[in-house]
Amino acid sequence: MTNNAYDPATYEPLTFHDAAERFRTGEDTPSDYLERCLATIEDREPIVQAFAHLSPVLARESAAASTARWAAGTPRSPIDGMPIGIKDLLETKDMPTEFGCEAWRGNFPNRDNAAVWALRQAGAVILGKTVTAELGGSHPGPTTNPFDPTRSPGGSSSGSAAAVAARMLPAAIGSQVGGSIIRPAAWCGNVALKPSQGGINRGERQATSMSTHGVHAGCIEDMWQVAVEIVKRAGGDRGWPGIQGPESTPAPRRPARLIVLETEGWADLDDASKQGLAGLLDQLRVRGVETTTRRDSRLVDSLECAIGDAGRVCNSITNWENRWATRNLVDQHPDGVSERAKAALAHAESMSVDDYRAALLARDLAQQAHRAVAASADAIITLSCPGPAHTWLGDQPGEPLAPLPTGSPVFNYPSSMLFAPAVTMPLMSVGGMPVGVQVFGQQGQDAAMTSIARWMLDSVSPVVC
Amino acid sequence: MTNNAYDPATYEPLTFHDAAERFRTGEDTPSDYLERCLATIEDREPIVQAFAHLSPVLARESAAASTARWAAGTPRSPIDGMPIGIKDLLETKDMPTEFGCEAWRGNFPNRDNAAVWALRQAGAVILGKTVTAELGGSHPGPTTNPFDPTRSPGGSSSGSAAAVAARMLPAAIGSQVGGSIIRPAAWCGNVALKPSQGGINRGERQATSMSTHGVHAGCIEDMWQVAVEIVKRAGGDRGWPGIQGPESTPAPRRPARLIVLETEGWADLDDASKQGLAGLLDQLRVRGVETTTRRDSRLVDSLECAIGDAGRVCNSITNWENRWATRNLVDQHPDGVSERAKAALAHAESMSVDDYRAALLARDLAQQAHRAVAASADAIITLSCPGPAHTWLGDQPGEPLAPLPTGSPVFNYPSSMLFAPAVTMPLMSVGGMPVGVQVFGQQGQDAAMTSIARWMLDSVSPVVC
Repeated sequence: MTNNAYDPATYEPLTFHDAAERFRTGEDTPSDYLERCLATIEDREPIVQAFAHLSPVLARESAAASTARWAAGTPRSPIDGMPIGIKDLLETKDMPTEFGCEAWRGNFPNRDNAAVWALRQAGAVILGKTVTAELGGSHPGPTTNPFDPTRSPGGSSSGSAAAVAARMLPAAIGSQVGGSIIRPAAWCGNVALKPSQGGINRGERQATSMSTHGVHAGCIEDMWQVAVEIVKRAGGDRGWPGIQGPESTPAPRRPARLIVLETEGWADLDDASKQGLAGLLDQLRVRGVETTTRRDSRLVDSLECAIGDAGRVCNSITNWENRWATRNLVDQHPDGVSERAKAALAHAESMSVDDYRAALLARDLAQQAHRAVAASADAIITLSCPGPAHTWLGDQPGEPLAPLPTGSPVFNYPSSMLFAPAVTMPLMSVGGMPVGVQVFGQQGQDAAMTSIARWMLDSVSPVVC
Repeated sequence: MTNNAYDPATYEPLTFHDAAERFRTGEDTPSDYLERCLATIEDREPIVQAFAHLSPVLARESAAASTARWAAGTPRSPIDGMPIGIKDLLETKDMPTEFGCEAWRGNFPNRDNAAVWALRQAGAVILGKTVTAELGGSHPGPTTNPFDPTRSPGGSSSGSAAAVAARMLPAAIGSQVGGSIIRPAAWCGNVALKPSQGGINRGERQATSMSTHGVHAGCIEDMWQVAVEIVKRAGGDRGWPGIQGPESTPAPRRPARLIVLETEGWADLDDASKQGLAGLLDQLRVRGVETTTRRDSRLVDSLECAIGDAGRVCNSITNWENRWATRNLVDQHPDGVSERAKAALAHAESMSVDDYRAALLARDLAQQAHRAVAASADAIITLSCPGPAHTWLGDQPGEPLAPLPTGSPVFNYPSSMLFAPAVTMPLMSVGGMPVGVQVFGQQGQDAAMTSIARWMLDSVSPVVC
């Protein structure tokens, strides 16, 4: 599939924000935009398999209504007419919601998640449900990496990441508990936002204490606009203020100083990715950005220590919190749930309440260590994924199950457990595949991270190695 | 119904903790205990109407298994064999779950809420689903007050409170967002615990940022034991440590000082209830308990001010958080949802995200004001309800809808918005009806409040006026 190989110098993501002017003049319309997306889907979907369900008939109706609004000069929002994909963990009233899980085949809840409701209010065109790893966990769906179908697209927001990468859609909704937005986005060359905890209303799906909705997009303008149009209408999660920031994409801002975080993923990282990140940091320093690491700062070292066990802490919290829902599902559909999900359940059922409390305490302490570096830098920078996507051809009969077929969240656990807003940028290419770099900040700094990411995307050349 | 009139001197609640010794010797058995409950239900249910669904066949099977365990000397827990009722907002795998709502008639989710699962693990006998006001809101079910069928039992945990009061059950699970545990318990002469926010795992029903599961019981020993047996097995809500404390009821403890809180309910309170509370406080002072009010303490006055608008704040938060679930339900079943629920939805849909953020901020500030009095007293004491239960004969055709047919949560909003553990005690009788008094404390002080309540129940004579 060399025709789809990734070259950051030539790859042009699909964008929407720049279509508005053409919609206004009638040079382009939301209906035509949608038809181009549908043509790309027809071309690429047989291999990429990004969608669990497509709804072209309703999408065409919705795009026609949007076309009329733009023609009348009355679009509902800057994303009126934007074709968008919804991860199949979120309920939609006009399509099935199957959670990537056999036990949920045919589930048709007839209701919209709050974020989906808000997107419809803003005029967006809900084109389809994107493939999720089963129940948002580690058991993969059929999606392949758009830049190499022998590789994983990452997960659990596999379809959202791949659909955007393949230019089928300008944006798609994902969700993250461990690394389910940032890692697939990084492996598929997306820009993506995993907001502060509670940043986008999860609606009827309230999920776990670490889960967030987020946005995959081809460019940072579309990423921000989708997030802000949802939050304007549906707010954040219950008990949270939601993402706060300007009504259009925050202006680029050069950070004065960045903390370079290694995380527990550093030790196993491939040399090319290490060199790539080093090259990127060199470019930043040339542009006047100071960097600091655990070797320069006792506070940063304390933070690295506090997140040193992030994977175990995150999995303990999430497995415990999913315990009753998964147990109910397995009891009702013993053959409808994967062995991988059953293993997570077995882990949860081996835990005591005090094990869970200890994991919550470790998370609290890590958040405290993160707050302690707030004055030390404008943001943290680190990789978004452990090098380029690995080869994945599916489970092989007779072979033991691969432990992490959608990849390791080792670079994603920290921002998840810190409830931190994270933006991943397609700033590296390793062996012809995208590798993302992320910035993340203090809780509530979604707009500030978007500003910094926007400056980096404007100012830094992607590193190829 | 004078035969059921309330006299605290003669009323004997149904208790379970004292049956264990008789189960051990074989003098009594869980099966016999259950049969006595069923006989009481047969006698009183036609008028009280506490149950949305009863499951006597499965309950008898469960009680027989418990009887065998006690005979073998291997009970699973101190509540093994306890017949218990589950508010019909909580899913149960062997009974319908209808949320007191026409739109949900016949809903049979085939799964257990985490708390129900934990109760089964502890050997409790799940006897039935108790009536809830529709969707936990203000639209009442058919339940009547066991001490006077012309009066409201309170709500939304109407059936749980009434079943315990009528000696149909020794304990029942309720839930509270505004005042749905403490007020009905107070009007029905129960002891009840509304735990610290997140104290008991809400399981698949995660509800709103202020909702909690709690326990109605005939005595404080059963109240604590039920709570602790759930939390031992299922912990608290996602992200919360859950109730922490001893494995059996904490010993009685005399508080050195109590803050007497007036709340926004004081102005409209009837004189008899005011006199009753004054008499109770006199008894406490005689026993060496100091009391302080907003007139003695600037900090207490600040707290009174911070909760002075509690009703509006709580309703803004809860209506907003229920907005998408209710909108979906109304869209699917326009005739299956009450006008009262639709009015709450209309309020929510008139709010902006910033209105919600302002309400969250008011809640945060009130919690800060509450933390500021932590060193001033061992607990806060106030009424649990605005005087005795009012007359309620149902909505009358042609009349405007009563705004609060299950009563005003005006004395309950404060502990709800403060995320505070509250225990209500049947320590007053006004005009032949029970009136509860509550103590509440800092977040996490569930055991300390239980100790103080236990001491008060042991040391103070109920006031009759």
